[in-house]
Amino acid sequence: MNCTKCKTKAVIGLPRHNAAFCKSCFNGFVHDQVARAIKSEKMFGKEDRILVAVSGGKDSLALWDILLTLGYRADALYVNLGIGTYSVQSHAKVTKFAEAVATSHGATLHLQTVEQEAGAGIKELAQLIHRPTCSTCGTIKRYQFNRVAIKQQYDVMATGHNLDDEAARLLGNVLHWQEEYLDKQGPSLPASVEGFAKKVKPLYRLTERELAAYCVLNKIDYIVEECPMAKGARTLLYKEVLNRLETESPGTKQTFYWGFLDKQARTAPPTTSMTEKDQAALHPCAACGQPTTAEICSYCKLMARAKSSAAL
Amino acid sequence: MNCTKCKTKAVIGLPRHNAAFCKSCFNGFVHDQVARAIKSEKMFGKEDRILVAVSGGKDSLALWDILLTLGYRADALYVNLGIGTYSVQSHAKVTKFAEAVATSHGATLHLQTVEQEAGAGIKELAQLIHRPTCSTCGTIKRYQFNRVAIKQQYDVMATGHNLDDEAARLLGNVLHWQEEYLDKQGPSLPASVEGFAKKVKPLYRLTERELAAYCVLNKIDYIVEECPMAKGARTLLYKEVLNRLETESPGTKQTFYWGFLDKQARTAPPTTSMTEKDQAALHPCAACGQPTTAEICSYCKLMARAKSSAAL
Repeated sequence: MNCTKCKTKAVIGLPRHNAAFCKSCFNGFVHDQVARAIKSEKMFGKEDRILVAVSGGKDSLALWDILLTLGYRADALYVNLGIGTYSVQSHAKVTKFAEAVATSHGATLHLQTVEQEAGAGIKELAQLIHRPTCSTCGTIKRYQFNRVAIKQQYDVMATGHNLDDEAARLLGNVLHWQEEYLDKQGPSLPASVEGFAKKVKPLYRLTERELAAYCVLNKIDYIVEECPMAKGARTLLYKEVLNRLETESPGTKQTFYWGFLDKQARTAPPTTSMTEKDQAALHPCAACGQPTTAEICSYCKLMARAKSSAAL
Repeated sequence: MNCTKCKTKAVIGLPRHNAAFCKSCFNGFVHDQVARAIKSEKMFGKEDRILVAVSGGKDSLALWDILLTLGYRADALYVNLGIGTYSVQSHAKVTKFAEAVATSHGATLHLQTVEQEAGAGIKELAQLIHRPTCSTCGTIKRYQFNRVAIKQQYDVMATGHNLDDEAARLLGNVLHWQEEYLDKQGPSLPASVEGFAKKVKPLYRLTERELAAYCVLNKIDYIVEECPMAKGARTLLYKEVLNRLETESPGTKQTFYWGFLDKQARTAPPTTSMTEKDQAALHPCAACGQPTTAEICSYCKLMARAKSSAAL
């Protein structure tokens, strides 16, 4: 198998693009896809200050690496959720990457530890509010991430969601026809009201497998294990099913997700409608001041329940 | 496991309804689901003459049986496509059912054999027009079925498409965001212009597994094998994937398909828009007079190609 571009020996085949690449051309392909995502979705410019949410996994570290390589002003935030060995190891991977790569680009790593004030771990918190662990974790991370972005005046927050993540999420939403969530599936969500930062997903054109390959080829050391809390999560099932379809028909994931974005762009420009909808519904949380559609935001509710439960 | 309704020993469990039934209550459940489909989708009344498309498989024979049991005026049509042993066996199953059950209800079985005029089988025909075998077969069966329904003045044509069929078709259309086809996914399509019969799918509330159980419990002898031409068909892959999701979350298929129908009913009444759209686009085929959106209908095109290829 030779590289489609330069004809030297290929190190990876990409069935969905009917192509194969050597290391150098593969890096070029990955950088191009991210540059294309940033440009076509008007994510940010060279002057913008970007805050990357890093977890220690392949996607977010690859994202940080790619943005720095492309010359963007990208700092990062790691939120330590105290999930035993998993958090210890992922924390270490992030610090290692920051020291080895990010610092030389003049980039900063912010660290945030969620204090288990009420003594309740993420699993117990999820049980208290009767929601899946992953969605509780999502609430906490989104909250912390937004808070730091606003406080430190970043122009935009970037997450490492890849094509597999977005296609799996879309499949789940489509299977249940959750139109409200379908509206919010774009890779670029504008800053909606004072206090809510703009959010972008520059990796939505790249698959999980491609990002793993990028890390391995570029010696980016990441945490390989899935989060132990994710075991049995719906998303993993949807990914498995999409991989089955992808094997039979390479390109299924991108046709599915990109086709959805095209359709959305044709029917209703998501940017405008999102902003209007959000501006109408959002206002500051009575407890912490961050934007919410309820009186008290879900993070503050969660923490209040945790405290009252611990007091019993 | 006891019957949810009458507490005697159950013969089948239905995880998606969180229920189990004995034979008699299961038959009641199946009949209820079909009656509900007929009523809610305004499919037909007791005076209407119905033409059921039968293939010899479980779904269409169960459909014929259920409609006769419910007291409807249901005749049937079998189209013999000459697919070797498969057609011989399925033909025999249909004839056997007609003699054993349908005749006693005063129902008629129409038989139609597609003459391989040009000497080309279904597989060769498909290759000639560069389309999958199953879609070519579909073209032929829809044509023959509609022709007989119109000629013999039936009020409505009924097919045995079940929840698995419709959910799989919907998944395929959603994965490719084929909006044109999404429009036509309803279980009740009105007669659009002179020459196009009304089409309904009374089994859309029942799964493949439930219909197989109905046949076994009621001693309806059907052809168990899939059509040999269907091997590798996309639909089978989509069904496999949906079964995987259903196992993990019973009810996935119905949430997906029924949710789609609800959404469709909310956004645009399909019946009206379909009729208007079709009336605008359809006119009689220049060759055979059946309705088509092109000058020559796809069936006549297919047959013309087969003839010209045989003449070479």
